[in-house]
Amino acid sequence: VGQQPISALMHAALARPHLISLAAGFVDQASLPVSETAAAFDELMAEAAAARAALQYGTNAGYLPLREAVLERLLAADGPSGRAPSVDQVVLTAGSNQLLHLVAEVLCDPGDIVLCAAPSYFVFLGQLHSLQVRAVGVEIDGEGLLPEALEEQLARLKQLGQADRVKAIYVTSYFDNPSTVTLSLARRRRVVEIAKRHGLYVIDDAAYRLLRYAGDDLPGLRQFDDDGSTVITAETFSKSFSPGVRVGWGFLPQALVAPVTGLKAHIDFGSPNLNQHLMATVLKRGLFEPHVDLLRARYRGKLAAMLAALDEHLSGIEGVRYSRPDGGLYVWLELPEGMPAGPGGGLVERALAEGVLYVPGEYCYPPEGPPALANRIRLSFGVQSEANIRRGIEALGRAIRQSG
Amino acid sequence: VGQQPISALMHAALARPHLISLAAGFVDQASLPVSETAAAFDELMAEAAAARAALQYGTNAGYLPLREAVLERLLAADGPSGRAPSVDQVVLTAGSNQLLHLVAEVLCDPGDIVLCAAPSYFVFLGQLHSLQVRAVGVEIDGEGLLPEALEEQLARLKQLGQADRVKAIYVTSYFDNPSTVTLSLARRRRVVEIAKRHGLYVIDDAAYRLLRYAGDDLPGLRQFDDDGSTVITAETFSKSFSPGVRVGWGFLPQALVAPVTGLKAHIDFGSPNLNQHLMATVLKRGLFEPHVDLLRARYRGKLAAMLAALDEHLSGIEGVRYSRPDGGLYVWLELPEGMPAGPGGGLVERALAEGVLYVPGEYCYPPEGPPALANRIRLSFGVQSEANIRRGIEALGRAIRQSG
Repeated sequence: VGQQPISALMHAALARPHLISLAAGFVDQASLPVSETAAAFDELMAEAAAARAALQYGTNAGYLPLREAVLERLLAADGPSGRAPSVDQVVLTAGSNQLLHLVAEVLCDPGDIVLCAAPSYFVFLGQLHSLQVRAVGVEIDGEGLLPEALEEQLARLKQLGQADRVKAIYVTSYFDNPSTVTLSLARRRRVVEIAKRHGLYVIDDAAYRLLRYAGDDLPGLRQFDDDGSTVITAETFSKSFSPGVRVGWGFLPQALVAPVTGLKAHIDFGSPNLNQHLMATVLKRGLFEPHVDLLRARYRGKLAAMLAALDEHLSGIEGVRYSRPDGGLYVWLELPEGMPAGPGGGLVERALAEGVLYVPGEYCYPPEGPPALANRIRLSFGVQSEANIRRGIEALGRAIRQSG
Repeated sequence: VGQQPISALMHAALARPHLISLAAGFVDQASLPVSETAAAFDELMAEAAAARAALQYGTNAGYLPLREAVLERLLAADGPSGRAPSVDQVVLTAGSNQLLHLVAEVLCDPGDIVLCAAPSYFVFLGQLHSLQVRAVGVEIDGEGLLPEALEEQLARLKQLGQADRVKAIYVTSYFDNPSTVTLSLARRRRVVEIAKRHGLYVIDDAAYRLLRYAGDDLPGLRQFDDDGSTVITAETFSKSFSPGVRVGWGFLPQALVAPVTGLKAHIDFGSPNLNQHLMATVLKRGLFEPHVDLLRARYRGKLAAMLAALDEHLSGIEGVRYSRPDGGLYVWLELPEGMPAGPGGGLVERALAEGVLYVPGEYCYPPEGPPALANRIRLSFGVQSEANIRRGIEALGRAIRQSG
């Protein structure tokens, strides 16, 4: 699981400088917020006392005005639930990845279990693996995690005497990476209800929430967590602003605040204060929303370009299907039955020869649960230009036809 | 060990806004590099392609030009040793704290042992505790770790059948926090030799190396590591430039590069790229050395002010002794025999009433090994003005006299 096989593919890719990578989950380069960052930084450095505060040590939980600002944004998006979180339940991290890692380490001992969508975000699967935590997959459909499959998996683990090892359910609830599925409103309620009944936490990875290009926003899972004790929400500015600034955050149930910030104190003594002051200034000066609007326009165009190219070059191939997401950075593609996407299977080698790289979907499956599907592909449209996306998909079409 | 008791003191301190804290290890506020940071940032943002590169994802090991620059600085300071490290042995982290944590986690399983100076940097002791690693203390004198004590501790552990649990020796080799001792040249050689003979790593925490106000620099411990397989060096820009930028790094033996960067990939997917580009620009533009010179001048003055105040207000008290370091941010003070420095002992409460806060030395002792000395105090001179340092030491003198 995780980085190793993808690294091997990346190395193969580096040897081909004209390769079009539809693999990396990086963000659009041209729209990175240079002028916004520069403006915020100028303002931050203009007043000596404020500048010095940003250059001094921060706190483990992070810069209070930024924590207040992200909380305010949450309440604006979700509306206050039965029990709105307070600002002490907000912790700032090095991207949402660090929040996921902290939470997994706090909740789980080696041998414990986290239930994950099959497929799931492979970096989180790698984190669980490194913590010796078992990732057990749960089947999904077009509305996300199947409640029946979740219950079944829990019943099976109970029968094995392992019910008490299950600690959490992990779900990327908007435009999942890689399946692109958004958990439906009804399922959000069900997942939280099931978690509560079994005494589990829900880790709601909302990294892609703002990257919606069509349709209406859905409330986060914590809207269905009446007493606020169940849902952990992970968010980040990496996708919506800049991964190089690397500021993420979590909304934590009260019981997890002290353990998570305590562990964070040991791990890095708090994330960089300067970056937190910078993002607080970006928000305060109204530089964020227009940038997200710009990003949405760009990604909407890229997604449309990818879907159009898929319609043109792949829709005629029997057995090929692909998702049509309303947001995120990916399309999830199904190859004809019996056509493996991974190394050694032929297709990825032919695709490389044709000049395109993708992520074989098999890397995204938890090691337990539903078996990894060998004929799935994750296509990223974040990095490449629309022209390159079209060329890449055309090359992929050729490779698939050669493999058929 | 670690944060909890200090947090309690900090809370007590917060209730007294006019308190002079000689406790926190923060850096001088007035000299934080506002104009240097602003200049580097302006340059970084001026060219769109370079700016975007800084705002995009980085790599786990960190920005190559910065890794090259810190390596160049190491070679300039130490001279190339028998086997100079290569740039792939440099990993950039969120301060040196993160490097220490990564290394401890990679080297040690729960129950393993790290030998540490008694006393040692309490944040590292806290990290070991959180990893369920045993910190076993080793006696020091004015030249640092006592080689005989190190050998004795190793022999004792061997006798207990625990020799194979010992994984590393940890030493803050310049102006140790809190003892202020610098490991002598002869001891550097001995410590590495002992480590090699026992198959241990040496973790050389060089965080304060650049904060030298008198005397000549000493080579890092890795100068005595002929085949480069033993010494891990941790350094940081937090003390010498800005803790808010939070860029540290390590020089790793080749065998540790893959495990450390692999673990880092899971923990945070790489430290903020923007900060690494910023520091590379700071170095490239020659903004760093003049700033360190300025810092040295300021801290030299503060240290002199603290020592002068100690000479004036405390040297007449029988049983009081204190270090006269050539660098760092601390003075280590010995109270009269039988006068405890910690909470409930009377002195810290009197000191608070008189308006000054310090760190009781007992928090800095590893839980095993030589017993914590109750009558030791760590005094920080980094944060306060010279005037406040004088007032704080005067207040401490009153509190000690009342306690005598």
